[in-house]
Amino acid sequence: MKLYSYFRSSAAYRVRIALNLKGLPYETVPVHLLRQGGEQLLPEYRRLNPTALVPTLVDGDLALGQSMAILEYLEETYPQPALLPADAAGRARVRAIAQTIACDIHPLDNLRVLKYLKHEMKVSEESKNAWYRHWVEVGLAAVEGMLAQHPATGEFCHGGQPSFADLCLVPQVANARRFECDLGAMPTIVRIDARCQELDAFRQAAPAKQPDAE
Amino acid sequence: MKLYSYFRSSAAYRVRIALNLKGLPYETVPVHLLRQGGEQLLPEYRRLNPTALVPTLVDGDLALGQSMAILEYLEETYPQPALLPADAAGRARVRAIAQTIACDIHPLDNLRVLKYLKHEMKVSEESKNAWYRHWVEVGLAAVEGMLAQHPATGEFCHGGQPSFADLCLVPQVANARRFECDLGAMPTIVRIDARCQELDAFRQAAPAKQPDAE
Repeated sequence: MKLYSYFRSSAAYRVRIALNLKGLPYETVPVHLLRQGGEQLLPEYRRLNPTALVPTLVDGDLALGQSMAILEYLEETYPQPALLPADAAGRARVRAIAQTIACDIHPLDNLRVLKYLKHEMKVSEESKNAWYRHWVEVGLAAVEGMLAQHPATGEFCHGGQPSFADLCLVPQVANARRFECDLGAMPTIVRIDARCQELDAFRQAAPAKQPDAE
Repeated sequence: MKLYSYFRSSAAYRVRIALNLKGLPYETVPVHLLRQGGEQLLPEYRRLNPTALVPTLVDGDLALGQSMAILEYLEETYPQPALLPADAAGRARVRAIAQTIACDIHPLDNLRVLKYLKHEMKVSEESKNAWYRHWVEVGLAAVEGMLAQHPATGEFCHGGQPSFADLCLVPQVANARRFECDLGAMPTIVRIDARCQELDAFRQAAPAKQPDAE
């Protein structure tokens, strides 16, 4: 398998964790989001992935974008170890937590959005950073609410094994820390992030460990 | 089942189509996103759904937010008629199209985001509308690219039956038209939207047909 990836992309980071947990070897093909005006915008990458976003997973004939679709594909095709619970209600809960990050936080703080705010809307650096922190803090507060009082929360977001929810949470927490967001009111998130960091699969997927890290 | 819904929410619209296609009766509980400063922000709704967003599906003991998690739950629990293809590659393709809309377009043009742009960032009405159209047009152009040249595209986004992709596409096209986005370069999307509108399940899920429509 090949993963078109950018070391700082938190969507690519999710997929890297999944590949590591499932023990699937893959080749990283770096796509530098800032070089050449954005390598993801080049025609050869757009042919592979019309959204011009990372990551793209190539598995045989299949070229697949959208990190959440990639996670579902990996889960169906390489089911062990499972990254979704066995029961429908548990699977629903894990997907809802994952998508609170993947739909409600990450898209708003994506590089292309920050660029639009700066270059098209001409907002100040201060205003742009306030935007970033706002959506992280609102979104992670919701995730904290989903985790803190639910009986299914365990060492990880759902029970004793990592799931899609943890795969989304850890990269989002890393970004939150990079932008100095306030995680003081989110003890459950901080605890689960620390538990994930004990696992090699999570540590090796971190931005600093990627071949294209700067 | 109960669906906490707002007539104009395109995320709720996706779920309404799924419930209709699967022939599942449900009660609509309106959550007015503009009244009382936003009924979704009231404590009793937040207890049900900590994200304070619509929709929420209640099925027995389960209260589930996040429209894409709800669709997956409905598909697993009420599998007929299937809204995902049978093969892993097809399922991946459908989810990738759906999530290009659910992750790359819709979150940026959500009501709470438009409110933030207006009230916190103080951007002009013109600038806010340009933002709205920008993300719809960039995102739908990517979807058009995923559809136009792929052999699996049929009467619907994937073959001859509606799937998650169509459930996301139709509400997004409705919003695009409401905000006068340019769909001129998107003939495949326009054709598939028209095909979906032939089905009662799609027509009955439209905002104007909801009990809380204004």
